[in-house]
Amino acid sequence: MKNAIGVEIPEYIEGLGKLEPFQGVWSSIIEDEVPVTNISRTLKAKKPHASKLCKNLEEAIKKCKPFDGMTLTCHHHLRGGDGVLMQTIKILDEMGIKDITLASSSLTSAHDGLVSYLEKGMITRIFTSGIRGALGDAISVGKLKYPAVIHSHGGRVRDFLTGRIKPDLSVLAASAADEEGNATGAHGPSAFGSMGYADIDARYSRNVIIVTDNLVDYPCIPSTIRQHFIDYVVKVDSIGDATKIASGTTRITNSPMDLRIARIAATVIEHSGLFKNGMSFQVGAGGASLAVAKFLREDMKRKEIIGSFMIGGVTSYGVDMLNEGLFHSIFDVQSFDAAVSTSVLNNPNHIEISCDQYANPNNCGSMTNKLDVVVLGALEVDVDFNVNVITGASGEIRGASGGHSDTASGANLTVVVCPAFRGRLPIVKDRVHTVVTPGESVDVIVTERGVCVNPSKPNLAAALKKAGLKVVDIRDLKEEVECMTGVPAEKQLGDKIVALVEYRDGTIIDVIYNVENLS
Amino acid sequence: MKNAIGVEIPEYIEGLGKLEPFQGVWSSIIEDEVPVTNISRTLKAKKPHASKLCKNLEEAIKKCKPFDGMTLTCHHHLRGGDGVLMQTIKILDEMGIKDITLASSSLTSAHDGLVSYLEKGMITRIFTSGIRGALGDAISVGKLKYPAVIHSHGGRVRDFLTGRIKPDLSVLAASAADEEGNATGAHGPSAFGSMGYADIDARYSRNVIIVTDNLVDYPCIPSTIRQHFIDYVVKVDSIGDATKIASGTTRITNSPMDLRIARIAATVIEHSGLFKNGMSFQVGAGGASLAVAKFLREDMKRKEIIGSFMIGGVTSYGVDMLNEGLFHSIFDVQSFDAAVSTSVLNNPNHIEISCDQYANPNNCGSMTNKLDVVVLGALEVDVDFNVNVITGASGEIRGASGGHSDTASGANLTVVVCPAFRGRLPIVKDRVHTVVTPGESVDVIVTERGVCVNPSKPNLAAALKKAGLKVVDIRDLKEEVECMTGVPAEKQLGDKIVALVEYRDGTIIDVIYNVENLS
Repeated sequence: MKNAIGVEIPEYIEGLGKLEPFQGVWSSIIEDEVPVTNISRTLKAKKPHASKLCKNLEEAIKKCKPFDGMTLTCHHHLRGGDGVLMQTIKILDEMGIKDITLASSSLTSAHDGLVSYLEKGMITRIFTSGIRGALGDAISVGKLKYPAVIHSHGGRVRDFLTGRIKPDLSVLAASAADEEGNATGAHGPSAFGSMGYADIDARYSRNVIIVTDNLVDYPCIPSTIRQHFIDYVVKVDSIGDATKIASGTTRITNSPMDLRIARIAATVIEHSGLFKNGMSFQVGAGGASLAVAKFLREDMKRKEIIGSFMIGGVTSYGVDMLNEGLFHSIFDVQSFDAAVSTSVLNNPNHIEISCDQYANPNNCGSMTNKLDVVVLGALEVDVDFNVNVITGASGEIRGASGGHSDTASGANLTVVVCPAFRGRLPIVKDRVHTVVTPGESVDVIVTERGVCVNPSKPNLAAALKKAGLKVVDIRDLKEEVECMTGVPAEKQLGDKIVALVEYRDGTIIDVIYNVENLS
Repeated sequence: MKNAIGVEIPEYIEGLGKLEPFQGVWSSIIEDEVPVTNISRTLKAKKPHASKLCKNLEEAIKKCKPFDGMTLTCHHHLRGGDGVLMQTIKILDEMGIKDITLASSSLTSAHDGLVSYLEKGMITRIFTSGIRGALGDAISVGKLKYPAVIHSHGGRVRDFLTGRIKPDLSVLAASAADEEGNATGAHGPSAFGSMGYADIDARYSRNVIIVTDNLVDYPCIPSTIRQHFIDYVVKVDSIGDATKIASGTTRITNSPMDLRIARIAATVIEHSGLFKNGMSFQVGAGGASLAVAKFLREDMKRKEIIGSFMIGGVTSYGVDMLNEGLFHSIFDVQSFDAAVSTSVLNNPNHIEISCDQYANPNNCGSMTNKLDVVVLGALEVDVDFNVNVITGASGEIRGASGGHSDTASGANLTVVVCPAFRGRLPIVKDRVHTVVTPGESVDVIVTERGVCVNPSKPNLAAALKKAGLKVVDIRDLKEEVECMTGVPAEKQLGDKIVALVEYRDGTIIDVIYNVENLS
């Protein structure tokens, strides 16, 4: 069966079950209707004054009675510094547990070591929003038994609430926690800021372990994760490499190309009709994206615009804008650098939110649905405005879906910033290798060679032209770029599906085939 | 069938279904086991940038499509000043809706007007933790079609999570809220402090309306109730009578009798073995109960004791103790006076908690399970240490179960304070008229005429005797009192069950029969 963007989707995948094809950004959302499949939170009782403290992670995991075929979940707030997931997998492996479904909110360079567990069949399924490095390569060449499922951040919450992901054990790292499992990421030697992705694991997993290197006196304040969801608490020497968990403050790119694209994007926003008091705004932490914030900040000051809220993925740059009064508040599902934790801890207008509140498509108040402007990056874009943020030049998995499609679907203005080519590779294609965010939800693509406006927004195109921006047809831009770079050779792909790209509503928007020769 | 305290419990009640008899305080709680019946939270989607604001409460209710036989829920944080429930019932009645199940977390003097709706069959079932005044009298003489169900605060959460209460519409008052339904009780002209009881309604009801007299700029901070659970928002002129919602600061009783009992109770605590650094403490707001806090405060200062946390039902007296550093933190499910709201708003160590976290017996971290000492009041106690806090001298319903049995079950030391007699009525009985809290979970009863220790705690009795307290056998105390007061005449009761007292685990601990002559 073909989905709405023309991708052939198998009806059934062994080990994963039946698939539904993507039908359009909002087609599966029936307003005010309760989805049919809907699972309950796990309720468990404990008797009074029972201790949850375990002497080590192994003891805690044993108490949770792990079994073959179980689903293990965790969050990725420790980013490249995470020391907890690998430790957990090692313990489960030593216990002889196999056929594990791993559902981490994302996977990073800290998880290269998972490859050997894929190879031996200890991990057989992966649900996640991002896969990189050696793990991405291993999955790309077919080393995971069943196809990996790439979901969005909001889609992960929906996956939990509809029973697609049924967590048996969640091991959740915290930079501070108390003996009952009240936990935060906002302070402690390994502080990482918001714990937004962990909320759904804590609420819906059959067994929840809090792991911390900083056991504080009861109660841990703030208590982002609350004690009544937590089964066991473990104090360890280290939850990871603090320098990789959160390092200093995020800096704006120095790349002239990124700055040029960012300046154009800020001008697009200024003339979009949305640049006014009460505007809300989200931007990624990557090169050109974050640089848009720099120019927007200058523009807001110049025009004396006061925004309502930012959402993040929050950087210290965003915190500075909050502190300058350019925005009234920040909603924070994930903090990108060390400087943000202090703001989470001390500023009541810096509001920690669950990923449910951030982006779950099946609730009646996702923040992404209230967003005016979002600025997003891309690995590739195509003439239908589809965006790829997951596969690289050889077709290998090397990125993250994250909140890309969530924010794009909800924002009044979705701006994608990217160079027209990187090295000798064109970025604007006839068709991106993998669609993560459908063109239907992308309004503007900003490159250094011109601004492409989705044909569904003719008024926006007219306004940007009137403002003096170079608005170009995306097909013309593609041809212009290909004149310089040439058309790249076809990728060498196999016929085995190694990953599914799940749209935020649970339908399948694209499939990723194995790469035969990964250079 | 008879339950564990010898009460004959019907197996089935029309309109309410099958009943399970109470079997003991912890008998139905199987540690780490997930209860079989467990319902899911309601998931509903909305499309981006849809407005939730309605022009009035009637419009919001209509959008929720009310129907005959529906369940309406609300919270009682507005106490005697509540203006929202009566307004809601009036609208539903004008729409012709009937056979309503009303599940308010408690009912107060503000709800006397419900009587006429009982009489006409518009309201046919009531689940609540407290019933007073004209409504209590009406139910007592049999004016509600099916027996009222009196649950504890924790039991109400369990009722929601197991599907015993299935809310179709929740109308939740807030003293401040924004256009998306983020809401708080911590500020605004009608501030009432914690919104702890409303959390479960917001999460589990099919339709949730936030009603406020104080619509603030987005976002409302703090957001105790989060937008992703809220369907509609209504701004009204008034949510009630602010002077009755929260009035000034709570004062300690001047009654010499209450003060005497309180002084003895504080001495009991001091010699209980629990009076040490890290102690946790809860006390009610009533006469002798709150006065115990006064003496405990003096004792803590004298002995330089620093406690861990208080739980409440929080009064300004508790806030003073927090600010003096006598306790590290307060967990607040309900605030009793205006002075508390400021503390909820500004002190990070004053932690707002849901009733789920406070007292749900089916989760793995109820605060009540971590409590060292609780001091509770009583309308009557009996020689088996059972406590009645719901029915009055004529057998009429005039009180509240509240957190009484929740805290008693979890605390290391449960102290009940009451006079040995009131007027000419003995308070210590052979058997209380209605058991709300089973004697199994009560350790000490403190009267002005002596301290009675549960025979299950011989070491405690010895310690209190050693400390010079007058420890008396409760049967001796009963006889001593009856020598002075005489034995009161039997109550004149009918054979119709007008209310069930549900223990916190969902079993039935007692039944209340109709009163034939209510003076």
